[in-house]
Amino acid sequence: MTDSTSLDALTRQRASQIIYQIFPERFAIGSGKSSAEKLANAAYDVADAAKCDWDDSTLNQPWGKQFFGGDLDGIADKIDYLSELGVTGVYLTPVFSAPSNHKYDATDFFTIDAMFGGEAALLRLIDMLHQHGMSLTLDAVLNHVSEFHPWFLAAKAGDAEKRDWFTFKDDGSYLCWQDYGLMPELNLANPAVRDVLYAQPKSLVQYWLARGIDNWRFDVAQDVGIPVAQEMAAIVGKAYPQAGLLGELNGFSGAWFQAGGGFSGMMNYWYRTAILAWLAGDIDGVQMNAAIRDAREAYGLKGLLCSWNMLSSHDTPRLITTVGNVADAQLALALQFTLPGIPLLYYGEEIGMEGGADPDCRRTMRWNEAEWNHAQRAWVKQLIYIRKKNPALQYGDICVLGDRLQGNTLVFLRFTDVPGEAALVVMNLSDAPLSAKLLIPYSHWYDGVPLRDALGHAPNLKLNAGSVQLEIPARTVAIFEAFEPYQNYTFFKPRNR
Amino acid sequence: MTDSTSLDALTRQRASQIIYQIFPERFAIGSGKSSAEKLANAAYDVADAAKCDWDDSTLNQPWGKQFFGGDLDGIADKIDYLSELGVTGVYLTPVFSAPSNHKYDATDFFTIDAMFGGEAALLRLIDMLHQHGMSLTLDAVLNHVSEFHPWFLAAKAGDAEKRDWFTFKDDGSYLCWQDYGLMPELNLANPAVRDVLYAQPKSLVQYWLARGIDNWRFDVAQDVGIPVAQEMAAIVGKAYPQAGLLGELNGFSGAWFQAGGGFSGMMNYWYRTAILAWLAGDIDGVQMNAAIRDAREAYGLKGLLCSWNMLSSHDTPRLITTVGNVADAQLALALQFTLPGIPLLYYGEEIGMEGGADPDCRRTMRWNEAEWNHAQRAWVKQLIYIRKKNPALQYGDICVLGDRLQGNTLVFLRFTDVPGEAALVVMNLSDAPLSAKLLIPYSHWYDGVPLRDALGHAPNLKLNAGSVQLEIPARTVAIFEAFEPYQNYTFFKPRNR
Repeated sequence: MTDSTSLDALTRQRASQIIYQIFPERFAIGSGKSSAEKLANAAYDVADAAKCDWDDSTLNQPWGKQFFGGDLDGIADKIDYLSELGVTGVYLTPVFSAPSNHKYDATDFFTIDAMFGGEAALLRLIDMLHQHGMSLTLDAVLNHVSEFHPWFLAAKAGDAEKRDWFTFKDDGSYLCWQDYGLMPELNLANPAVRDVLYAQPKSLVQYWLARGIDNWRFDVAQDVGIPVAQEMAAIVGKAYPQAGLLGELNGFSGAWFQAGGGFSGMMNYWYRTAILAWLAGDIDGVQMNAAIRDAREAYGLKGLLCSWNMLSSHDTPRLITTVGNVADAQLALALQFTLPGIPLLYYGEEIGMEGGADPDCRRTMRWNEAEWNHAQRAWVKQLIYIRKKNPALQYGDICVLGDRLQGNTLVFLRFTDVPGEAALVVMNLSDAPLSAKLLIPYSHWYDGVPLRDALGHAPNLKLNAGSVQLEIPARTVAIFEAFEPYQNYTFFKPRNR
Repeated sequence: MTDSTSLDALTRQRASQIIYQIFPERFAIGSGKSSAEKLANAAYDVADAAKCDWDDSTLNQPWGKQFFGGDLDGIADKIDYLSELGVTGVYLTPVFSAPSNHKYDATDFFTIDAMFGGEAALLRLIDMLHQHGMSLTLDAVLNHVSEFHPWFLAAKAGDAEKRDWFTFKDDGSYLCWQDYGLMPELNLANPAVRDVLYAQPKSLVQYWLARGIDNWRFDVAQDVGIPVAQEMAAIVGKAYPQAGLLGELNGFSGAWFQAGGGFSGMMNYWYRTAILAWLAGDIDGVQMNAAIRDAREAYGLKGLLCSWNMLSSHDTPRLITTVGNVADAQLALALQFTLPGIPLLYYGEEIGMEGGADPDCRRTMRWNEAEWNHAQRAWVKQLIYIRKKNPALQYGDICVLGDRLQGNTLVFLRFTDVPGEAALVVMNLSDAPLSAKLLIPYSHWYDGVPLRDALGHAPNLKLNAGSVQLEIPARTVAIFEAFEPYQNYTFFKPRNR
């Protein structure tokens, strides 16, 4: 077992975040406006626009042009809600000028869409977030643009310089993302393209960092490529050393960290795949424990801690819809908040919103508390509270132990280099109680140290010469932490810390 | 998972070989001669010689003196056959002057046996092989010589200097290999012995490298010892840096690589033991997967890649005779050509020759195509084709995954550092189809990448956020490779390679 001794302060700070993902068109409308009032704005006068009421639950074609009126002022108005929930930052899907509701089809990376309130609203939101100790992460696509982006229109019209910003073939066809004709791929081999995206001070990436955003999330890392990520990190890291640069990869991200440099973290869809497959019974505990260990080994501790752990997003069905019931959703959430990495909570998951595949997962946020699943919200708040109280859950290393047990059990220890800062997470996914002796290869839970399940579902344990006798009810998760049982004695002496 | 980034060009080149092992007395006779015509040569006038017809299938005592007339010109005559099969080099069991058919009892390391055509025939063969882009590996015994070797005769006769080339006891007895009185062991502690074997430019090892052979295979590495191998590699490697020096060890070879230096590769009998035991049902999938991983961990990637994987040799029964049927032989061959290491194909295995223990495994090569198992030959040629087309199968690293699945399944991923250069090998050895979700901890098979079984037996797969749903028929092997499904988009962009 290694430890977190060598972690720098920036890594610890990053790993301690809890990020809340917002799809701005669907979260809230500023200044208490109704959808009808908001959608009267001229910004929504776009072709094929379907203007809907906030409580209209029908999500229809044309799905990219269905509008409910959410905006950045709406988010700013809900800061107290976010603060009370306990999150430490917000990640917004794209906000740049674009005709669609999702804005992945930007026509200008340097303006904020008027539907969302323009740059003034962004600056207000940044200010409000920072006042509340929260960060802001924006979303950029470096690989492709809309077919209506002026760069591509110029290239199609014959502009010699812009033509080399894309990849045209002799027959006039051009490379486009996964053969969607409407998303021409940028030619990142062209230094002029890299200049405007990230290399120059006035580039997309640096422009908005200069205006006060904290981090970037980049779409489709596999199309951006490791060398480009490395160059970007080297350049941007010099000017903005605090900025996190995260890549999206819907799979295993080991190679992105082994190369050295590049993205500071990845969207760790690998853990999502493993958690959901395990809950569904598609893989058993052996493969589950191995998958958790794989990421630790290949990402490295720092890379793993700085990656985002999400269970759902604007690209997937919502958690409860995926797993089918609240009980399994809560088991999944417990792993999201205890595994190494930054929890990324998709808006509405904390109140148990349902939703199938896009566009159904992009329903408007429910603000009527009568519609909330309050048990779900209490569970999320409890997990956030537990995580924030225990440094080991925030930036501790991980040692996976569950595949040493019979049954269908995930077990992992999180621990920092400070004696006693640790947590033992045990999830028994079988339909029978788990009763098993477990040896724990950790030095600072001394003989006799008592452990308590922070979630209160499993009985207390006591360290017995390096081992514990686990007693975990069926389909139950426990987060064991040490506590001091004595009045005039401490296991974890200050002089040893 | 580590990767092959740091592999040098020589290692990649070595790992890309496919070697064909020939027992020269039994492969072919040069110039279309019959056995009777060839055996009329005075070279065969040795004591106890039994002269046989090529098609005589009776292999009797005295087995070391039964002759059919095969020679080096015979091999040269069959170069087109070898070339069409797809092998990249030839390994010959000993060819130095010796009275037996196997010539492990050399009486002179510096002459080629007249039965085989003498040095002129060797030089012709080297020339022909090199013209066809093939290498030649010879076989030497450093540990012992024939009791008729002049060095030993001189020692026995009282030559003071030569006496110290062996180990005589006070009673006149001497150390000999495994107590066979006829194979006195050389005293490798004597620098003069090491000089004549490998240390001087005119030594056995350097003499034949100077004449154009490419590699050496050394008998009984356990008797040679690691320090001698290290000294030899240091000396010979300076003069002949391209030459491969392989050691025979009928077991696990980890220590031979951990020591640093020494043999560039070993005969990886460990993998043969595992494959045959698994096919026979003597070990299950858990132990099989562990055995494959053990070698990767202990040999290191480079050592493993440069070792020889053989399923049979002149010292073992032939493959089909061992496993009992063609179907199992084909499963074994699929592993031989996809596991890390250089496939070493014993002559005649490609046409399904049968044969029990020595001397039965040394039958004459069948050249009458009516006697061939053509399905076996097509299978071997297909495996060679698949291996040669995929760099990951040649010099990729390995990640073993099969022990994460229920059932009796070996699964391993081969992958280079080039994004997308990979292969997933799955062998389901149970009698029921395998249907299982598998998480693949590899970064460059991106979400949506389709995989195809190069052998055509299993349905296509598609990556789903780092996982695949395997569907493998009973007792079937599949070699999955990625392919590009799009016209104007590529998952594996040149700029990312």
